[in-house]
Amino acid sequence: MSNCSSFQQAGGIRPIRYSNNVLSLLDQRKLPTEVLWLDYTDYREVAEAIRSMVVRGAPAIGITAAYGALFGARDIKADDYAGFVSAFDEVCAVLAATRPTAVNLCWALERMKSLIRANPEQSVNNLKIGLEYEAMAIAEDDVRINMNMGRHGAALLPEQVRILTHCNAGALATGGYGTALGVIRAAVAAGKQVVVYADETRPFLQGARLTAWELQQDNIPTILICDNMAGYLMAKGEIDAVIVGADRIAANGDVANKIGTYTVAILAREHNIPFYVAAPISTIDLSLADGSLIPIEERDASEVTHVGSQRLAPEGVAVRNPAFDVTPARLISAIITEHGVAQGDYLTTLAGFVRRGGR
Amino acid sequence: MSNCSSFQQAGGIRPIRYSNNVLSLLDQRKLPTEVLWLDYTDYREVAEAIRSMVVRGAPAIGITAAYGALFGARDIKADDYAGFVSAFDEVCAVLAATRPTAVNLCWALERMKSLIRANPEQSVNNLKIGLEYEAMAIAEDDVRINMNMGRHGAALLPEQVRILTHCNAGALATGGYGTALGVIRAAVAAGKQVVVYADETRPFLQGARLTAWELQQDNIPTILICDNMAGYLMAKGEIDAVIVGADRIAANGDVANKIGTYTVAILAREHNIPFYVAAPISTIDLSLADGSLIPIEERDASEVTHVGSQRLAPEGVAVRNPAFDVTPARLISAIITEHGVAQGDYLTTLAGFVRRGGR
Repeated sequence: MSNCSSFQQAGGIRPIRYSNNVLSLLDQRKLPTEVLWLDYTDYREVAEAIRSMVVRGAPAIGITAAYGALFGARDIKADDYAGFVSAFDEVCAVLAATRPTAVNLCWALERMKSLIRANPEQSVNNLKIGLEYEAMAIAEDDVRINMNMGRHGAALLPEQVRILTHCNAGALATGGYGTALGVIRAAVAAGKQVVVYADETRPFLQGARLTAWELQQDNIPTILICDNMAGYLMAKGEIDAVIVGADRIAANGDVANKIGTYTVAILAREHNIPFYVAAPISTIDLSLADGSLIPIEERDASEVTHVGSQRLAPEGVAVRNPAFDVTPARLISAIITEHGVAQGDYLTTLAGFVRRGGR
Repeated sequence: MSNCSSFQQAGGIRPIRYSNNVLSLLDQRKLPTEVLWLDYTDYREVAEAIRSMVVRGAPAIGITAAYGALFGARDIKADDYAGFVSAFDEVCAVLAATRPTAVNLCWALERMKSLIRANPEQSVNNLKIGLEYEAMAIAEDDVRINMNMGRHGAALLPEQVRILTHCNAGALATGGYGTALGVIRAAVAAGKQVVVYADETRPFLQGARLTAWELQQDNIPTILICDNMAGYLMAKGEIDAVIVGADRIAANGDVANKIGTYTVAILAREHNIPFYVAAPISTIDLSLADGSLIPIEERDASEVTHVGSQRLAPEGVAVRNPAFDVTPARLISAIITEHGVAQGDYLTTLAGFVRRGGR
């Protein structure tokens, strides 16, 4: 864990740890009432951890999937290149199928596959060693990327600012430091006076459980509200800016993010409040022309009808549970990445960022 | 209970029962997992029942307060008119202070006081008998009023309609039948094909717990969603109309209703979906020029941080918990009352409705 310590102060907890060939995930279903770490060495169990949201948040899912792919690779018996590639593709397919919306998942798996494609002359054993370094690099890069993003984003904020955020785009959603919360951390580090309003973010309550908890760890003033209170506070003039993360960004700047983000964006425009998205380049999917093409995951009804074991709604009620929505680019004031800030002409700017690469 | 039975079929449960000098309230904190009735004969306990939301919903609060005032009156020892009036005013002040936003509470107490003011020649004993009849009349009138409202409102709806509602403006929020849900019941009775989307309505979950439950009792197709999903469904073209209730309507048509209503109204306008408010005349407060003058109750943080005994958020987190917000008249397509539908010129139309009286 020694490699984690340098980031502990600047950005709170790191939810994904890899040491002695074991992946440890901070169980985000249990926070904040319980701090529980779960250990993984099997790729199918990693896939289930992603599916059941032990870990969540687009960048964190990508990192976790990379380690899952590593474990899958280690289990492959084939010692010839073609056999290994074929088996590794199957491993990656299992991991890719866990959650459809966040593109960082596919991006991380693609990065693992690229390493193999680029080194056909290497032994299978060497490829497995290479994959371990690649997974660790994906995890380590993420914190540095988030710090760069934070610096670019903080420059957009005034000296005193009350920021609304939705879901958790923090240290817990990434390798550490966070995307949206990374911008907030960078603003605080730059001496700005920041108060955060955290939407609780039903049904999984990432805001109430995770954002409130991790900002509390860093002593950043945070006020928890229900999702349906943001409009009231905006009308009262109590919100100066909105910052959220992203699960996938289409070529034109349309953004898929946690369900409710679209509503917050409409509210922000109604009240002339800037609406910022903070996300790494790995979130941009240039293969999709616009947000209507982004697949939206619908999750189990029990997430809405229950909190833990406690039933909220009558038995037998029908439920819709889309986990994400799409915010059109026209509602977005800026997209903050590790390479800088895109404003306005997203099609050109985002493509330029992607050409520069995600490192 | 025999006087309740005729309404059981047309509008589901009646949450407020009065029989043998006892007020029975269906405990709305326990639904839908438990159907528990609580009995009251003391006005201070009735006040606490309103404060703690055993009963909620503007019309239901008014009815309950009327019975509370009756119990308070019965306990008054003074047998002279002036002494009785003075003591009754104190009783009403306790009841009026329980919840600040819903004006039906004051309206019902004012109706009780009016009976006393109009009959200074009567003995205190006769006044107490008169107050019992007045409280029962307030309760009985409410169901008829809601049915009239339902008829007017149903005429606004197409033959096939997917309706979003927020909070519970149903039988459980009234003497029976409901305001917004009364319109839905009337539409169903008129043979229209209705599907209801029910916002769960954090933090008290009136939608998940109460609306879903009472529409299920009437076999009206209902789909439960989290508050932050309405925008997504509107963008997908899955919502044709919005109907909500009201806790107080200012002279200009601005409407205070459950927190989140304002956001739904903005979303409805963004997607060109009609946004209807259904409320009895007793909800209109001509003394307030606009909605900015309506007092907004802020409730305890624990409603947001806990569901039942289960903690959702970290200890010590700051919370905002406004229970209502104000939707400006410009976002409202029509206000449906028992006297008809106000559209557009609310200032004149609502004043005309009020002049005709609430019966």
